[in-house]
Amino acid sequence: MVKKNYIRPLDLNNGRVDMNHGAGGRASKQLIDEIFAKAFDNEYLRQGDDGARLPALPAGSEWVMSTDGHVVQPLFFPGSDIGKLAVHGTINDVAMMGATPLYLTCSFIIEEGLALSTLKTIVESMGQAARDAGVSIVSGDTKVVEQGKGDGVFISTTGVGIASTKHTISGTNARIGDVVLLSGSIADHGVAVLAQRESLQFDSQIESDSAALHTLTAALLDALPAGTLKTLRDPTRGGLATTLNEIAVQSQVGIELMESSIPLKPQTEAACELLGLDPLYIANEGKLIAIVSPEYAQTALSTLRAHPLGEMASIIGTVVADEHCFVQMQTRLGGRRVVDWLTGEPLPRIC
Amino acid sequence: MVKKNYIRPLDLNNGRVDMNHGAGGRASKQLIDEIFAKAFDNEYLRQGDDGARLPALPAGSEWVMSTDGHVVQPLFFPGSDIGKLAVHGTINDVAMMGATPLYLTCSFIIEEGLALSTLKTIVESMGQAARDAGVSIVSGDTKVVEQGKGDGVFISTTGVGIASTKHTISGTNARIGDVVLLSGSIADHGVAVLAQRESLQFDSQIESDSAALHTLTAALLDALPAGTLKTLRDPTRGGLATTLNEIAVQSQVGIELMESSIPLKPQTEAACELLGLDPLYIANEGKLIAIVSPEYAQTALSTLRAHPLGEMASIIGTVVADEHCFVQMQTRLGGRRVVDWLTGEPLPRIC
Repeated sequence: MVKKNYIRPLDLNNGRVDMNHGAGGRASKQLIDEIFAKAFDNEYLRQGDDGARLPALPAGSEWVMSTDGHVVQPLFFPGSDIGKLAVHGTINDVAMMGATPLYLTCSFIIEEGLALSTLKTIVESMGQAARDAGVSIVSGDTKVVEQGKGDGVFISTTGVGIASTKHTISGTNARIGDVVLLSGSIADHGVAVLAQRESLQFDSQIESDSAALHTLTAALLDALPAGTLKTLRDPTRGGLATTLNEIAVQSQVGIELMESSIPLKPQTEAACELLGLDPLYIANEGKLIAIVSPEYAQTALSTLRAHPLGEMASIIGTVVADEHCFVQMQTRLGGRRVVDWLTGEPLPRIC
Repeated sequence: MVKKNYIRPLDLNNGRVDMNHGAGGRASKQLIDEIFAKAFDNEYLRQGDDGARLPALPAGSEWVMSTDGHVVQPLFFPGSDIGKLAVHGTINDVAMMGATPLYLTCSFIIEEGLALSTLKTIVESMGQAARDAGVSIVSGDTKVVEQGKGDGVFISTTGVGIASTKHTISGTNARIGDVVLLSGSIADHGVAVLAQRESLQFDSQIESDSAALHTLTAALLDALPAGTLKTLRDPTRGGLATTLNEIAVQSQVGIELMESSIPLKPQTEAACELLGLDPLYIANEGKLIAIVSPEYAQTALSTLRAHPLGEMASIIGTVVADEHCFVQMQTRLGGRRVVDWLTGEPLPRIC
């Protein structure tokens, strides 16, 4: 047992984060030991150094690295919280590179005055999300800023994972004729956060879809023949519309959508209508877009639907030639419209 | 040439960051293309996906991962700025694990209203620091928070590097009889930031020592026989005193210091006296502590002194038996005192 040379435990019921907790001295160490180390415990964190020493990756493994900041407000909302989101968000960015996520790091920027009990709840939720996903949080850092210079807590996470050798996944790989699939209903995360922030009540509660998608991407990587899975992307900020526009520009193609095929839960649709929001632009945190060779579209669809996170999966469109790289949509009413990038700002601080 | 489907360039002279730049749509993409992608340009960022796909590490390589948040105020100070510091800080954490840093990621949390010109200066400084250090910034994320919910900009960086196979470096490896070296003068960074923040003028300007220390650690790893380099640590927040206390607890030893051997520049010492600060507790951003087997202390010292970043290196103490894990110091006046952990808060937001 290593001696800890401080005496009184943190007051986790009534205590608050103060500037001392960020000064790097005994109070910082106590905060880390009593909240973070307990919640994230693993052999790498137990090394207790300024970083984690990690075992060799399998020989020849290409690997991926991705980072994401999380500033969502409020910190807790139906279906998730900032801690869980910070784990899921970065796991998903790694997974969308066609990789198996292994390790995460986290950087906390905490506003002075945050209740220690709130911090503990967030950190424990984060630890649970990581364990559930089979990923270790191997290193971290905490800083504290004065009241009014932050907003509760911001969490940046970075993930690494081993890339698939079977498929090369990139937003640049969509080709004319390829089929666009979506793993489930859109706009649930953004609407859940907005409803919580604005204290809106709906008949049926809308929950964030926040989820780690790496087992769903693994199922696709496994089921599809080498090279037939082209692009994976999670439509977060900017929603489905913006993400498809990004891919269209990266691959220098157009995309044709069928509105009637895009899954949308009735309660989310009703909330969007009420609030004047277009669900195509609302963030998702547990959905993926997959672009696949046309001959394997049905395989991809059935693979997605066989997974609990892809039960509502659908084929939503196709990749077409378009020198303007437009995303266009056949509407439910039989019309046709260009689905532009998000230009306004419907929902700040959604993730 | 990939088409960018937006039209007006950013107004880099008079423009400011607004909430749109964080919403994930066209404005976000433009900010990334015109400021970040230009300043950090490399083959990994050019992939344009949600993360970077990186080449295999040499077979069998253990590797390290470390992360650090940066919230320093002011954003610019003599000798460095938040961008450079965010690169140096994480490179140093990787280097202190005995590793060669290879890749960085960055997460920016920007306060609405920050001048685009300020952001550009910081990002360019960061890009330059990374290039100077031979490290690539391979992936990033930007979020924007409302005015009054942040403080200019916060930058979290994460680094990975390949660990040494020759030495196993850890804060747990200090053994009785080992020698403690310091690579140069203490307290310069903290005093430089504080002076800038408080608009203090001294006769001679005190500059931050912000520097990437990985070539200095490489020289030590190379010069010392296998297993004789035990611990490397950069005494940042909490200063030399707190860092040595951390190592003492990790290794379950005591440390004896000689005050007269600890390098301290006269102008920094004068500023500390004026401000009532103990330089032992003031942050450094370009110094390292090395703990080595006694028979190689002179080799380590001459190796440090032969490097431009270690010219003022000194042997400052020894590792002793102490069940209380105290750090003690022979003072210049011949007395003796316990050098405790930082407990108060002399300098918030110093890194």
